[in-house]
Amino acid sequence: MNFHGQHILSVHQFERVDVERIFEVTDQMRPFGRREKVTNPLKGAILSNMFFEPSTRTRVSFGSAFNLLGGNVRETTGIESSSIVKGESMRDFARVLSGYSDVIVIRHPEMGSAEEFASASAVPVINGGDGANEHPSQALLDLYTIRAELESQGKNVDEFRIALIGDLANGRAVHSLLKLLSLFHRVTIKLASPQGLDTPPQLVELLRSRGATVSESHDLHEGIQHVDILYVTRVQEERFASQEEANYYRGLFRLNQEIYSKYCESNTVIMHPLPRDSRAQSQELDEDLDSNPNLAIFRQTQNGVLVRMALFALVFDVVKQVQSSASKPTWHMPRPRIA
Amino acid sequence: MNFHGQHILSVHQFERVDVERIFEVTDQMRPFGRREKVTNPLKGAILSNMFFEPSTRTRVSFGSAFNLLGGNVRETTGIESSSIVKGESMRDFARVLSGYSDVIVIRHPEMGSAEEFASASAVPVINGGDGANEHPSQALLDLYTIRAELESQGKNVDEFRIALIGDLANGRAVHSLLKLLSLFHRVTIKLASPQGLDTPPQLVELLRSRGATVSESHDLHEGIQHVDILYVTRVQEERFASQEEANYYRGLFRLNQEIYSKYCESNTVIMHPLPRDSRAQSQELDEDLDSNPNLAIFRQTQNGVLVRMALFALVFDVVKQVQSSASKPTWHMPRPRIA
Amino acid sequence: MNFHGQHILSVHQFERVDVERIFEVTDQMRPFGRREKVTNPLKGAILSNMFFEPSTRTRVSFGSAFNLLGGNVRETTGIESSSIVKGESMRDFARVLSGYSDVIVIRHPEMGSAEEFASASAVPVINGGDGANEHPSQALLDLYTIRAELESQGKNVDEFRIALIGDLANGRAVHSLLKLLSLFHRVTIKLASPQGLDTPPQLVELLRSRGATVSESHDLHEGIQHVDILYVTRVQEERFASQEEANYYRGLFRLNQEIYSKYCESNTVIMHPLPRDSRAQSQELDEDLDSNPNLAIFRQTQNGVLVRMALFALVFDVVKQVQSSASKPTWHMPRPRIA
Repeated sequence: MNFHGQHILSVHQFERVDVERIFEVTDQMRPFGRREKVTNPLKGAILSNMFFEPSTRTRVSFGSAFNLLGGNVRETTGIESSSIVKGESMRDFARVLSGYSDVIVIRHPEMGSAEEFASASAVPVINGGDGANEHPSQALLDLYTIRAELESQGKNVDEFRIALIGDLANGRAVHSLLKLLSLFHRVTIKLASPQGLDTPPQLVELLRSRGATVSESHDLHEGIQHVDILYVTRVQEERFASQEEANYYRGLFRLNQEIYSKYCESNTVIMHPLPRDSRAQSQELDEDLDSNPNLAIFRQTQNGVLVRMALFALVFDVVKQVQSSASKPTWHMPRPRIA
Repeated sequence: MNFHGQHILSVHQFERVDVERIFEVTDQMRPFGRREKVTNPLKGAILSNMFFEPSTRTRVSFGSAFNLLGGNVRETTGIESSSIVKGESMRDFARVLSGYSDVIVIRHPEMGSAEEFASASAVPVINGGDGANEHPSQALLDLYTIRAELESQGKNVDEFRIALIGDLANGRAVHSLLKLLSLFHRVTIKLASPQGLDTPPQLVELLRSRGATVSESHDLHEGIQHVDILYVTRVQEERFASQEEANYYRGLFRLNQEIYSKYCESNTVIMHPLPRDSRAQSQELDEDLDSNPNLAIFRQTQNGVLVRMALFALVFDVVKQVQSSASKPTWHMPRPRIA
Repeated sequence: MNFHGQHILSVHQFERVDVERIFEVTDQMRPFGRREKVTNPLKGAILSNMFFEPSTRTRVSFGSAFNLLGGNVRETTGIESSSIVKGESMRDFARVLSGYSDVIVIRHPEMGSAEEFASASAVPVINGGDGANEHPSQALLDLYTIRAELESQGKNVDEFRIALIGDLANGRAVHSLLKLLSLFHRVTIKLASPQGLDTPPQLVELLRSRGATVSESHDLHEGIQHVDILYVTRVQEERFASQEEANYYRGLFRLNQEIYSKYCESNTVIMHPLPRDSRAQSQELDEDLDSNPNLAIFRQTQNGVLVRMALFALVFDVVKQVQSSASKPTWHMPRPRIA
């Protein structure tokens, strides 16, 4: 696809070649993420960063990405700030706002809201998450992280083994990632979820029809063996019939260093869409894994800024100008690795 | 008036010549609104965009206008963020904030709050709406839109016919616009409202004393005939004695394509201060008008950014620097017309 | 200390020489605060201005300081915007956010939160107030104001007399300031509070052990005599056993022009950490003092921006670049003194 001026609403928009193009541009953003260089090809451009449900992390990530390309950010952080509550239609709001802006990121709790919004916008709209539906930049940063982690281990980025564990029935992050994985034909995918939280059958079908090897189970320990990547998601208590059932399944689907050491290959990469729930009764991903060098969750969020920079650069068609506007910063901030 | 360093609190501040000056500068902002050029005469300046009641549209419009002139925006989006709730006086808050800022926009639910705030501010204050009182930039963008629409039809901008319909008793947008219209001596003004929601008599008097031809009625169909401009406002349900009465009047004061075709001249321009209430039971301005090329409501909001840029440029006295700092952007975003 | 890349969490970090260094840099920020010059040594840098409790004044002050050095600001204004509520640990949030940012300011209601946050951050963290614990930039701006006011009166900045009055038992502003004052060995400190709201004994001990002359009383009128600086804080009603007791003490610890004229030396400088409570029943600092030229409370908040600029410049190690990047602004905004 030609990204210039296009909306980014769903992973369904992408062919394999589009994903490769996004990642190629993302790679070029690395020196800017590390602040070895600064650049400003989007000088004078305005992002309207419209969040109609709270998500500090995603909001700041998009805003930072736009700032790192030299653009200005206007934003809203909650539905209360919006006249939409006064009966204004999403379409009216989109038309008005797109008259002020050069690109819009929208996050909204309702499925399909991003598409409705985009249909009335005069400028490109990037879906920052519309309820249970889609969150394409999250799926892209997940896949980019998989690629980057495999590369850093000298592994093949086309033929890898990945396990997804936790609640696979719900959760847009997992579904969007699986849709993207369907673009890779020689992938081995292991799906392990508590009973009743299985992956939607049509998604499994899609993956198989594209050539992926897919297996399903309800056993964490079996599910996390023999893979390059382990993608963990939250088991949400409220989905179960009783507290007892929830506790039982949560107990089975907790990953900690002991379980990792016992069942995983020694360099299996651990990922998670974040936030992880670190309360004692939750802990799907124990903090004792924080010193495990294969825990990639913070590299994952840092990659998010790079992927979002790439999306903006492509949508504005300024990939070349990112480099030609680059200079060394007048400052240097040492960035220690945190233990 | 000399705008440099002045507060913009009320349309009462303006003579006809001041309005003409603002519009002359607004015209010069068009290439920047269309992003044919970018500029930064306000490099290093800080706008404090202080919204003590929600209004995403107006807030983003002011913020974008300041960004388009190269300035930085600090802001607050709701009363909860403010220490004013802890007993701090408006005057203290103004003095403190004006020590950080180069200009302040304030939106506050209380009438007169902007003036009180301005009385203690060391830097210019622009009233972004103070309750039922004033919203001068809205009135200016309305009048600018009238002028621009008349010009694009090759009509006389000094001697036009305008109808205002809906609730004319309340609503600062209509009142501020009428005050500005009083600066035009050869205007024909038709006022059509439900009984009990008539225009305040002193406003009608003012308009007549300045030379305008004013007629009043309670009949929508009669009221919208033979005019160049049709300015629609909301009929607010809560103002009526009973639901039946509200429904009756709302039914009478709804504009849709059928009524427009039947009663209006073929090129009558439709305006509305927005947001319009698009819920089924409201719809003072039906969405079937969206494909009518005379519906100017979205051009109106886009003009808002230009008018606000002009106000900032005048208050900072950088009208010339807007041009001398201009350059071509390194990016181009195609802006389709939405159907 | 070498400030480059360091967290600023507590006044305990500073030796006398560090405070002098901060103030030397703060002095250099004055032309930028007055907008005689603009500068941008932090071009391309991102401040994440994270406020998990409302404080418009402090938030805008930090944000403006960063903008005045040419940097970009991303921010959050309330706990509701944060995924921390979903069970995410402070440490996870810090690691994620520090992957987007070059420096972070955090304001949080819990004591010790800033330190916990900093322990997981890859970039420097500045404590913008953590509950009853610390607010180091406030203490620094208070001390800087004391120095500046003494200097403008031609007084000795090493050997001055200061009175602190009001609630001295609680309130981080007073405690942090007293800790900083302990770095000055020839200071005379008068502490006057209502009975039961005395200064913590260990703080008094610390001051005496460092050479300060400290006296304590429960008498406002005695307490405010013979001093160069008078630092007033709020007597908080809710700390008293009964409304009667609160009223009694509040009455005793109100400062107005009459009391000032009767008991204070004619050039005693009046300070207050703001906001002051201007409701009729409160008024620890009467508005009739607003025309007193010795009322320094608004100079104090303006100094806050300068001190915060200095902290950023030191933490980024760009003190020299502040000057070498400086230029004259293309605009000039007249800043009247407010009566």
